[in-house]
Amino acid sequence: MADQPQPTPTQPAHVPLNRQRLIAPGPVEVEPRVLAQLAQPQMHHRAPEGVAKLMQARAQLSELLDAPGYESVIVTGSGTAAFEGALVSLVPGGAKVVSAQAGKFSERWGEMAGRFGYDTHLVSRPWGEVLDPQEVADAARDAHTLLVTHSETSTGALHDLQAITAAAKARNPDLIVIADCITSYGVAELRPDAWGVDVIVSGSQKGTATPPGLGLLLFSPEVQERLIPNTPRGFYLDMQRELKGQKAGNTPQTPAINLIYALSASLERLLSVPREVLWAEKRRQNDALLAAGTAIGARPWASRTSPAVAVLCPPEGLGGRAVAAQLAAMGQRALPGQAPHEDTVFRVSNMGYADRYDALAIAGVMEDAFEALGVTFTRGAGVAAAWEALKG
Amino acid sequence: MADQPQPTPTQPAHVPLNRQRLIAPGPVEVEPRVLAQLAQPQMHHRAPEGVAKLMQARAQLSELLDAPGYESVIVTGSGTAAFEGALVSLVPGGAKVVSAQAGKFSERWGEMAGRFGYDTHLVSRPWGEVLDPQEVADAARDAHTLLVTHSETSTGALHDLQAITAAAKARNPDLIVIADCITSYGVAELRPDAWGVDVIVSGSQKGTATPPGLGLLLFSPEVQERLIPNTPRGFYLDMQRELKGQKAGNTPQTPAINLIYALSASLERLLSVPREVLWAEKRRQNDALLAAGTAIGARPWASRTSPAVAVLCPPEGLGGRAVAAQLAAMGQRALPGQAPHEDTVFRVSNMGYADRYDALAIAGVMEDAFEALGVTFTRGAGVAAAWEALKG
Repeated sequence: MADQPQPTPTQPAHVPLNRQRLIAPGPVEVEPRVLAQLAQPQMHHRAPEGVAKLMQARAQLSELLDAPGYESVIVTGSGTAAFEGALVSLVPGGAKVVSAQAGKFSERWGEMAGRFGYDTHLVSRPWGEVLDPQEVADAARDAHTLLVTHSETSTGALHDLQAITAAAKARNPDLIVIADCITSYGVAELRPDAWGVDVIVSGSQKGTATPPGLGLLLFSPEVQERLIPNTPRGFYLDMQRELKGQKAGNTPQTPAINLIYALSASLERLLSVPREVLWAEKRRQNDALLAAGTAIGARPWASRTSPAVAVLCPPEGLGGRAVAAQLAAMGQRALPGQAPHEDTVFRVSNMGYADRYDALAIAGVMEDAFEALGVTFTRGAGVAAAWEALKG
Repeated sequence: MADQPQPTPTQPAHVPLNRQRLIAPGPVEVEPRVLAQLAQPQMHHRAPEGVAKLMQARAQLSELLDAPGYESVIVTGSGTAAFEGALVSLVPGGAKVVSAQAGKFSERWGEMAGRFGYDTHLVSRPWGEVLDPQEVADAARDAHTLLVTHSETSTGALHDLQAITAAAKARNPDLIVIADCITSYGVAELRPDAWGVDVIVSGSQKGTATPPGLGLLLFSPEVQERLIPNTPRGFYLDMQRELKGQKAGNTPQTPAINLIYALSASLERLLSVPREVLWAEKRRQNDALLAAGTAIGARPWASRTSPAVAVLCPPEGLGGRAVAAQLAAMGQRALPGQAPHEDTVFRVSNMGYADRYDALAIAGVMEDAFEALGVTFTRGAGVAAAWEALKG
């Protein structure tokens, strides 16, 4: 898409008094109580309390998804590191891997599989669209592993992971499904056990509202048996060794132990309500952002929207970068689209330590940004639409 | 007033996921950058950088009010400590003091003057009403000092400090006017130089959005000469000695130096815009709270409202304590009224590190609280009224 003209952001006089908000789809706002965990007297990961904290965080990670048979691994690294760990620790050299992709992040997994020399096949849909379960199942009928993204952060689409997994496993019961749930874990409905998803991958800086630095994995009981000992495609990211160690409370390498303390504290908050309440509330909050944007002239890019991020096409004649720049000038850190769609959309999110009233506030922020950019709309329409969506 | 029946606060399932907000009229939310000042390696108040920080904060305090001739004093203590310092350091034993009062805090100053044995005269108006400048001027025609409150935090009234000072000084040019500006400093229009106010008193945990612990004073050039050396009514709060020391960057006693670093950082943000912009923006934010409350069945207690706090009488049949309890159950820390008017009103404030979008969020909070308490109103009316008030 050709770049849109970039209006100069305007700066009303009161703007320096605005509260700075992180409204990007990760990293996200973090609860002060969670941040305070980071600043404790330096803890040691081999001390009994460090070991206990790792075990606690691992148990919380499974509990959040009601998946007690799933064993979790916490990797010190990004979500990409965690995904790589799952891939190289489960897929033997040269095996057939299918990557189902429709956006920046799902494309990354296909690229990663190619890098390791797997027999990589792509099932691609245009950005913003959702994957077709049957098409994916057909492509994966004789594959070893399927790589699929649940919430595509670049487009705001929520792929139907349940239907895709069901269709693919109906055709190929031995298929391993590795799911990128980086922005769906702790945000969208996700039932790995009931849906038959083998590996769940996430990152600390998204739904779990912790600073970046931890990759999170959950392995199904069956897939744990298929982890390859001494994979030649990784050492640091050897999940067979890592899982064996972590089951006993030990990490083979030094972990970001402060972040693990923070993660556990944040998970405690998420676990304070039934998971269905959490999912419904985050859905409602994101629906409020989408409704607000729609009411003032933008439109959601994805047909099936993720509750993790509102990815909105700005009104005609306005680019995503201009909107993101205007928001930044107002002290509100959102994001434009990702290459090559930087200007197609802008992205705002209420994923982290933010509640329904913050979603209402973001609706106001979007109205003021659009007004500053000269968009014509009925003042109050975005705020009213957001509030209506927050009912219940 | 008889206590209202207290409905049991209800707790929708998502409530534990709410972000905790401090929406009381002090202490207030503090910017994380300001809080981080507190956690620096322990600074020393006698080191050159500690001395420089005190001098910087003192200069910023005068600059915020465009009062370069006014010398400031920072007391380690509350706003009450600062007020006591001004009183005992300026008023000789047995002198006539007039206390103009119409609420909890202004009543405190009369009580304080009585405690020190001054010839204390009260000009009282019922809570919620505003003081009459001529009535105050009459009472103070032969007084040594007038004690007056600008923003009465217990009722939400903004007294006309300019008119009161003008009227009183027209009758009694030698009168000293000590103004309780605890919740108006950095929030409401306040021009001590142009208005002829001799002493401004505030506290760190209000408009300056710093944690509690510092009392703030500004002394006019004329009144500085009238500070009593070695007042027999105080030692710690001897402002003559304190001002002499602080003018040279020294405090006679150990100050809460971490808080002074934080105060200076917070004042930097307030000074980043013209003071008229700051005052107008805080006024707009509080008007939004008042408009939201009015739209859903509450009403402002005061006829002339302070921009520091929205003090609202709940709808018929509902007490202020029930509203405050409901807000607390939702994770939103507001306040009921103050004795003996605990149940007459509830009080919410956007005074601290909070912006117009937070005011919009509080409108949503109030709607949900009223809904939970069974109040009948049109959903969305409060939010819409707040947003309308935030125009411009």
